[in-house]
Amino acid sequence: MEEDNAAGPSKKALKKAEAKAKKEALKAQRAAERVATQVSNIELEDDPAKDNYGTTTNPTFSADAEEVELRDLDDSYDGKKVVIRAWLQNSRTQSAKMGFVELRKGGNWTIQGLVLATITGTGAESQLPAEGTPVISRRMVKFITAINPESFIAVEAQVKRPLEPVKSCRISTLELHITKAFVLAAAPPVLGMTMAASSQPVANFSDEEPKAEEEVKKEPEAEGGIPAASMLTHLDNIAMHKRAPVQQAIADIRIEVKRLFRSYLEERRFKEFEPPCLIGAASEGGANVFRLAYFGQEAFLAQSPQFYKQFEIAGGRERVFSIGPVFRAENSNTPRHMTEFTGLDLEMEIKHSYTEVISVLEGVLLHILRGLRERCADEIQIVRSVYPSEDFLLPEPGKEVRLNFAEAQKLLREEGPEEFRNVRDDEDMSTAQEKALGAVVRAKYNTDFYVLDKFPETARPFYAKVDDAGTTVGDNVRVTNAFDFFLRGQEVLSGGQRINDPKELEERIRAKGVDPNSEGIKEYLTTFRQVGVPPHGGGGIGLDRVVAWFLALPSVHLAAFYPRTPKRLLP
Amino acid sequence: MEEDNAAGPSKKALKKAEAKAKKEALKAQRAAERVATQVSNIELEDDPAKDNYGTTTNPTFSADAEEVELRDLDDSYDGKKVVIRAWLQNSRTQSAKMGFVELRKGGNWTIQGLVLATITGTGAESQLPAEGTPVISRRMVKFITAINPESFIAVEAQVKRPLEPVKSCRISTLELHITKAFVLAAAPPVLGMTMAASSQPVANFSDEEPKAEEEVKKEPEAEGGIPAASMLTHLDNIAMHKRAPVQQAIADIRIEVKRLFRSYLEERRFKEFEPPCLIGAASEGGANVFRLAYFGQEAFLAQSPQFYKQFEIAGGRERVFSIGPVFRAENSNTPRHMTEFTGLDLEMEIKHSYTEVISVLEGVLLHILRGLRERCADEIQIVRSVYPSEDFLLPEPGKEVRLNFAEAQKLLREEGPEEFRNVRDDEDMSTAQEKALGAVVRAKYNTDFYVLDKFPETARPFYAKVDDAGTTVGDNVRVTNAFDFFLRGQEVLSGGQRINDPKELEERIRAKGVDPNSEGIKEYLTTFRQVGVPPHGGGGIGLDRVVAWFLALPSVHLAAFYPRTPKRLLP
Repeated sequence: MEEDNAAGPSKKALKKAEAKAKKEALKAQRAAERVATQVSNIELEDDPAKDNYGTTTNPTFSADAEEVELRDLDDSYDGKKVVIRAWLQNSRTQSAKMGFVELRKGGNWTIQGLVLATITGTGAESQLPAEGTPVISRRMVKFITAINPESFIAVEAQVKRPLEPVKSCRISTLELHITKAFVLAAAPPVLGMTMAASSQPVANFSDEEPKAEEEVKKEPEAEGGIPAASMLTHLDNIAMHKRAPVQQAIADIRIEVKRLFRSYLEERRFKEFEPPCLIGAASEGGANVFRLAYFGQEAFLAQSPQFYKQFEIAGGRERVFSIGPVFRAENSNTPRHMTEFTGLDLEMEIKHSYTEVISVLEGVLLHILRGLRERCADEIQIVRSVYPSEDFLLPEPGKEVRLNFAEAQKLLREEGPEEFRNVRDDEDMSTAQEKALGAVVRAKYNTDFYVLDKFPETARPFYAKVDDAGTTVGDNVRVTNAFDFFLRGQEVLSGGQRINDPKELEERIRAKGVDPNSEGIKEYLTTFRQVGVPPHGGGGIGLDRVVAWFLALPSVHLAAFYPRTPKRLLP
Repeated sequence: MEEDNAAGPSKKALKKAEAKAKKEALKAQRAAERVATQVSNIELEDDPAKDNYGTTTNPTFSADAEEVELRDLDDSYDGKKVVIRAWLQNSRTQSAKMGFVELRKGGNWTIQGLVLATITGTGAESQLPAEGTPVISRRMVKFITAINPESFIAVEAQVKRPLEPVKSCRISTLELHITKAFVLAAAPPVLGMTMAASSQPVANFSDEEPKAEEEVKKEPEAEGGIPAASMLTHLDNIAMHKRAPVQQAIADIRIEVKRLFRSYLEERRFKEFEPPCLIGAASEGGANVFRLAYFGQEAFLAQSPQFYKQFEIAGGRERVFSIGPVFRAENSNTPRHMTEFTGLDLEMEIKHSYTEVISVLEGVLLHILRGLRERCADEIQIVRSVYPSEDFLLPEPGKEVRLNFAEAQKLLREEGPEEFRNVRDDEDMSTAQEKALGAVVRAKYNTDFYVLDKFPETARPFYAKVDDAGTTVGDNVRVTNAFDFFLRGQEVLSGGQRINDPKELEERIRAKGVDPNSEGIKEYLTTFRQVGVPPHGGGGIGLDRVVAWFLALPSVHLAAFYPRTPKRLLP
C-alpha cells in the first residue's frame, strides 16, 4: 500500500486534477464574491434584528441561555435556550425565509441548526413578530447562510427535536433553532483545502516540493468525486488538516496510547524521568546523529535515552520510564521514517531473568492494544472510514507468541516466500523479511502482535547482554538476551538485558570496534565502574509506529502531530 | 544564598578541603586494601557456610522465602523469611561472630541487618549448629561486613523485631537476621563521592572546569565534618548524586508536579499534544536559539511550543497542553539558567475574557502547590533536612493575589527598597525587582504565590493581545492581556491572550520591527489567514523553576534530572 502512495498518481491524472482544482477554486471564488456583494448590500441599520447577528469579538447574549459544548447536548436540553460556540461547517438556503447550517465542535460532534425569519412580509409591509418571539429578519437568514465555512461562530438557539433524525450529523435527535448568530473569527472565502478534501485519504506522501510547472496543488480526484489532497497540501494547510475528524481521531488515539503506557507502568511502580535531548557525544554511533555548535564545543541530539535510562538504574531508581522526543539524522524520504519522533522507553532492575522485562513490555503493549479497542472504538471507526484496515488480531490471554530469532528465520525459510529460502540465523532481518514473517505468523498463530527473542549479537549494539547459556546460531554467533516486538509484521519495540558488569561491558565495546576511551563511551563506562549497578534491562517503543501500524495507516506521518522529514520543518 | 554559592568558598578553605579530601581518600584506600586481603585469605572451600554467601549474578535462594521490597516490609512480616535486594549502605563488625549492615532501597527506605555466626568455636574445634538452624560462619560474617558500601546485594533473612527501635533507619521496628548474602554488583573500594558527601548540600554550583592546579575535587568541609562536594563532583559521579535521598526526593516531587499538572488539565478536558523540537525558523527571535545543519537547510531547536499550541487551537483542539523540552542558547552560567529545560504549556479557547486563562493557570498551579504539600510531605521534609527553607505560604482559597503590573510597580516604589523608588510602569522588571516585590507581597498579603497582570506591551512579544479598553501606563504605553506568575518572588509562568485576528497580528508584527514575510513568521501568519481562529490564550510554566523555587533550592540544576549548562553536556 505504502509503495503505491509513495509513487503517487500518474502525470495524466495529475494534469486532470490540476485543471479540476483550478476550476473548483474559480467557482468557489465567484460564489464568495457573490455572497460578499449580497451581504454588503444589506443595510444593517434598517434591520429590526440587527442586534441579533453580525461579526464581533464580544457578542452579548441573553443571561438566561446556558453556554454548552456540543458533546454535552443530550435530550435533557430539549426545549432549552443555549449558547453554542462552534465551527460552521456547511450551510444552505432553503428559501428567503429559512436556512440550515451544520455546526461542528469537539473534533467530531456535529449538529444541524436552522434559522427561520419571524418578521413577516418584506420592505414597508414587514411586521414584527409577537412580543416574546425572537426577532429574525430575512437579512439575518441571508447573513447566516452566507458565513464562510470553517468560520468560528457563536449562536443562541433553542434546542428542539427535529421532525426526523438528522442523519448527516452525529447529534441526530436534536437540532438548534437559531435566534442569534455572531461570527467570532471569519474563515476566508476560499480555503486552501476544504474540509471535504481534508477528510479524504491523503493522495500522495512524497514530501518533494512541487516543481514550478506543477505549482497548482496536486489534488487527484478520489472515488467519491471530492478531490483528495497530497500530504504537502495537508501540511501547508495545517489547521484544516487537523480539523478533519480522521486527524482528530488519530490524535485522540495517540494520546490514549501514552496514557495507557503511563498508567500501566505507574501501577507497577515505574517512575518517570526525563532524559536530555542535548548530549555531549554521539554515543550510539555517529552516523545518523544531528550535530550542533554549542558554546565552542559540539553537541548532539539524542538518538535514544538508552544511556540515561541506565544511569537512572545505577542511581537507584529501580524502574523508570520516559516519554519524549528522539532524533535521527537519516535522509530517508519514506512513509516509515521521520527525523524526530516520540519514544516510550522503560528500564528496570532484573531479579531473576530478563524475561521479566519481556513480560512487562508485552504486558504494557497488550494493555495499550486492548485498551485502544475498548476506549477508542469510535475513533478507530472514524479512522477506518477513511483508511480501511483489517481487524488487528490480538493473541488470547496466555497465548502470546514469543519466538526465538532462529525459530522465526526457520519459519520464514520453510513457510515464507521463495525469496527468503536462504535467510540466516546469524544475520539481522530486512524490513521485507519482517513483513513476510508477519504474514506467516498471522496465518499460523492468528495474531498481529508477537515477540522475537534471542537476536544474534551481530544484530545488536555493544550493551546487549549475551545469553548466559552460551547458545550460538549460524556461523558460531552467540545470541543475546535481546528482542524486538512486532505489530502487523513491523517492528515497534527493541529491548533486552543490558550488560551491568564494567569488565564485560568494556570487552564488548572493544569487540564491537568502539574505543572505550572515546567521548560519551568513557563517561558511560565510568558510571558502571564508579558504583555497583544491578542487573537490568528495558526497551524502547516507537509511539508513532504503534499508532500507525495498529491503525494500518499508509504513513507514520499521519500519526505525528507535526511530522519532521528531511524536507519538512514547517509548520 | 545563590550568590554565595556561585562565588564559592575561599581559596584557603579550598586548599584545606583538598588536603582533607586527599587524606580521606588515602585512608579509605588503605582500609579497602586491608579488607581485600582479609577476604582473599578466606578459603571458601573449607567453609561449611560457603553456599550461603559470595559474589554471583545468579544466587539461588530457598523456595520458601518471599521476595519483598523494603518499602513493603511491615509488622505482618515479623518472623517470616524473606529475600531482599538492596544497596549495602554501611556495615560494622561487632565481634568476630557478629556484624551489622544497613540496607537501602526504594530511594529512601533503610533497614538494619545483622549477621551472627551459628558455627561455634574456630578451626578444628568448630561445630555446626543444630539441624534446621542456618549455617553461618565467622568467615561469612567477615565477608558481609567487608562488602564495599553502595554494592548491590541480595540477602535471605528472617524478619524480627529489634530489642529497641533502630533509630538510624527509616524502618526502625523491624530488622533482618541475615542467613544468606550475595553481592550482585560490587561497588569499587573507593567511591568518587561517598553517600555521606552526596547527602550534604552542594558546596559550589559553578560549572567551570577546575584549573590544573586544582584538579583534586573541591570538597569544602561542611558543618558536620563530612566534606560537601561541588556540583561538578556531583555530576561527575552521577549515580552517587542520584542515590542520595535528597535527590531521590526532588525527583519524586518533580514527577508529582507533572502528574498534578496533567490530572488537573485532563479533568478539564485539556488534550495533550506534542510540539516539535526541530523547527524551520528561529520564529521567536534569533538571539538565543540553537542552530543545526539539516540536510542542506538550517534547523533550529524550539525555544517554546508557542506557535504550535496556537496551531492546535486553529486546528480545532479547543484546549491543549504539552510537557516537553525547550531550548535556550544562552551563555549564562548561573544557578538560574539551563540550556534545556522542561516546559509545562497550555493553550485554550477563550469564551468571554482572558481571565478564564488566568483562572485555569492559577487553578493548576495552586493544585500543584497544595498537592505537593499533601502528597509529598515526606519528600519535602527530606529536602528541607539538607536545604532548609521557610514554609511556602499559599493564599487561602478565594484570597489569591492578582496585581496589575502598574499596581505592583507602585507597591515597589512605595514599600520596596530605596533603589527601586523610580521604577516605571512601562518598563519590564529586573530579577532584582521581582525578588524585592516578592518580599513586599509576602509581607503585605502573606503569600509566596501571586499573579502580575496587564504587562506593558513593551515587555511582551508581538503575539500578546493589547487590552481592549485601551488602557495605557507610563509614557502612553498600552497594556496587554498578559501576565506572569511568581513563586517566592521568582517568575515561573508567562502567559496571556494571543492575537487571533490576522490583520491585528500583522500590524503588531510590523510594529515590533519583525518582517511578516520572514521564514516561520510567514507560515505562522498564514495559518491565521487560512482559517478562522477562535479567541485563545495560554501560558507556559517552567517545571524546573517550580520545583526549585517551591523547595527554595539554591540552584535550578538540582531540580533537573541531567542539568544542561553552557559547560556541561555529560553525562
